[in-house]
Amino acid sequence: MTTTPILPSVNNLHKKLFGPISVPERLLLGPGPSNSHPSVLEALSLNPVGHLDPFYISLMGEVQELLRYVWQTDNRLTLPMSGTGSAAMEATIANVVEPGDTVLVAIKGYFGHRLADMAGRYRANVQTIEKQWGEAFSLDEIERALVKYKPAVFGIVHAETSTGVCQPMEGIGELCRKHNALLLLDTVTSLGGVPLYLDKWKVDLAYSCSQKGLSCPPGLGPFTINSRGEEKLSQRSGKVPNWYLDVSLLNKYWGSDRVYHHTAPVNMNFGIRESLRLIAEEGLENSWKRHLDNANLLWSGLQSLGLKMHVNPDLRLATLTTVCIPSGVDGKAFSLHLLNNFGVEIGGGLGDLAGMVWRIGLMGYNSKRENVERILSLFESELPKFR
Amino acid sequence: MTTTPILPSVNNLHKKLFGPISVPERLLLGPGPSNSHPSVLEALSLNPVGHLDPFYISLMGEVQELLRYVWQTDNRLTLPMSGTGSAAMEATIANVVEPGDTVLVAIKGYFGHRLADMAGRYRANVQTIEKQWGEAFSLDEIERALVKYKPAVFGIVHAETSTGVCQPMEGIGELCRKHNALLLLDTVTSLGGVPLYLDKWKVDLAYSCSQKGLSCPPGLGPFTINSRGEEKLSQRSGKVPNWYLDVSLLNKYWGSDRVYHHTAPVNMNFGIRESLRLIAEEGLENSWKRHLDNANLLWSGLQSLGLKMHVNPDLRLATLTTVCIPSGVDGKAFSLHLLNNFGVEIGGGLGDLAGMVWRIGLMGYNSKRENVERILSLFESELPKFR
Repeated sequence: MTTTPILPSVNNLHKKLFGPISVPERLLLGPGPSNSHPSVLEALSLNPVGHLDPFYISLMGEVQELLRYVWQTDNRLTLPMSGTGSAAMEATIANVVEPGDTVLVAIKGYFGHRLADMAGRYRANVQTIEKQWGEAFSLDEIERALVKYKPAVFGIVHAETSTGVCQPMEGIGELCRKHNALLLLDTVTSLGGVPLYLDKWKVDLAYSCSQKGLSCPPGLGPFTINSRGEEKLSQRSGKVPNWYLDVSLLNKYWGSDRVYHHTAPVNMNFGIRESLRLIAEEGLENSWKRHLDNANLLWSGLQSLGLKMHVNPDLRLATLTTVCIPSGVDGKAFSLHLLNNFGVEIGGGLGDLAGMVWRIGLMGYNSKRENVERILSLFESELPKFR
Repeated sequence: MTTTPILPSVNNLHKKLFGPISVPERLLLGPGPSNSHPSVLEALSLNPVGHLDPFYISLMGEVQELLRYVWQTDNRLTLPMSGTGSAAMEATIANVVEPGDTVLVAIKGYFGHRLADMAGRYRANVQTIEKQWGEAFSLDEIERALVKYKPAVFGIVHAETSTGVCQPMEGIGELCRKHNALLLLDTVTSLGGVPLYLDKWKVDLAYSCSQKGLSCPPGLGPFTINSRGEEKLSQRSGKVPNWYLDVSLLNKYWGSDRVYHHTAPVNMNFGIRESLRLIAEEGLENSWKRHLDNANLLWSGLQSLGLKMHVNPDLRLATLTTVCIPSGVDGKAFSLHLLNNFGVEIGGGLGDLAGMVWRIGLMGYNSKRENVERILSLFESELPKFR
């Protein structure tokens, strides 16, 4: 028996006695996180099990299978990274980019810049093409850049959370195959909410998040890579320069070997399993239609109030709408007013659109008629006070 | 108004209609995750708020402050990484190691090897000293290695989860300062459960996890760096080669600027805030004493059953005990028996100790007398069946 040792005294400078947590009720209609489905929150709060428990191992398989469904892919290596969407974004780059590889990023918003930043950190030769924030790329523009830069990887954002633009995807995958590039796609704001067909579109790598179309809190980053991507990974000359996100190690845990890598965030995986189950129950086509129907309601309602959308109708994302802030209105003061007085969160502009737009999200559980009506009625009653 | 477009059909191959989640009740007495405190699970399931919501911003400050308390540090840059403990481990390496830096790792178990693997991926000149799994390093051994290798960073594990050894820390920090090395400490299995004084011990960088001494589910990785560490970070010639874990960016979000970096896992932070609040309420000294008292009960009980501990009493961790598997017993079959028939999880050996020990954790919420009694009575009644 070890006796209690005499210990140095404890410093109580940082010992703050805070009260129990009390979270304000919020309706999250910004760019994400969105509100979670109540049954997802319930799943989150279940007693954890071990990360090698047979129950958990079978739950992992269920999560993988349903991620394949929502992404419309058969990729074997489909799993949630144990971090947020940004970790999954970095995982795509870290695994397939070797130093000196040319990575071409099509930038039309904030998250294109992030991809380029990450690729540089993995010592890629980063090349970019850019469009105004609010536009999309044409096939022609993409092919010219592929010809010019001959990239090993071409990265593009499907649903730009900073602009509200949905990039038309038809034909891009074919161009990438023709020019021998891997196609890397950001689906953070599209997964679950907007038509998305990874395999049909010949996407080689993709990532997303848990807190938007999936109605789960933030904390997991769905990731997928197909056999073309795996081939590039297997040809690396050295280890992946990121241990935590190394898919060759992760695959030994998520694949049939079940070799311990890191202690999985089990409760977050309880949550995402429930959120994916709910989408399968609803049916992907129904979820997409619901998002579009509610977005249409929002757009026509905002127009009736004399407000302008930043993005042309044919490129608009159903999950996230950028609304032009009328001249003379202090956009930030208005969103703070909604948050503080009505518990409703909408987002402000990022980067090039800072101060120019509000961002209204209708994603996953939050894409419903009553939320559209709520935000429209708030714009109607409160905005005049800020003009 | 955008009309519903005609879409390609959806592939339903992976559309599995699973039932609602139903998690088996487990008493987690392995190396972690440990069971979470019920009020932590309740906090986890609260409705999320935005990651820039004023409420959330102030909660971030509370989490930081209480992490300083449990770690006994004044470090400004103290925050939970948005990943598990392994992500926080990688964050320490990624931020301060530059290519060519010598990193000396003292290896006496599985997690020392992991540190060395990670340092290599960040192109360090990795040097190691090794001890048998079950032993600790002496000051003399450490000083000789510091003199020999002149490392920029010296990494060591305080509480080796793979062996159950608690490394005596007195004097190591002084040696590192004398020989101009940063001291990097793994506190994954010690934080909250075992006496730990980062500043007193002159630790420059440390990391931990949420699912052991803190009684929260896995998913967050507490991280801290002091001014000596920050100085090395600020002198880097290029960007940190890991975007997600780049503390210079994270500090703009966690510091006073509040610049968006990534969407924080808000619900996990609700959980860790509650778990840290509970430790402050109990008092760190009381928590340490509780862990030691219950470990003593376990050790003497196991001895009474004729079982041997793998680690000498003076080096034993109160949070995690390695028990020698008696010869002739199939250790794995016994732990599966406990899991399947009694819902009690204990761990097996890792690496050099695979097949040689069981690992019994009494951590955080699970460090209580009734759990000790439960596991002892199971060893008493069930083990004879496996001899």
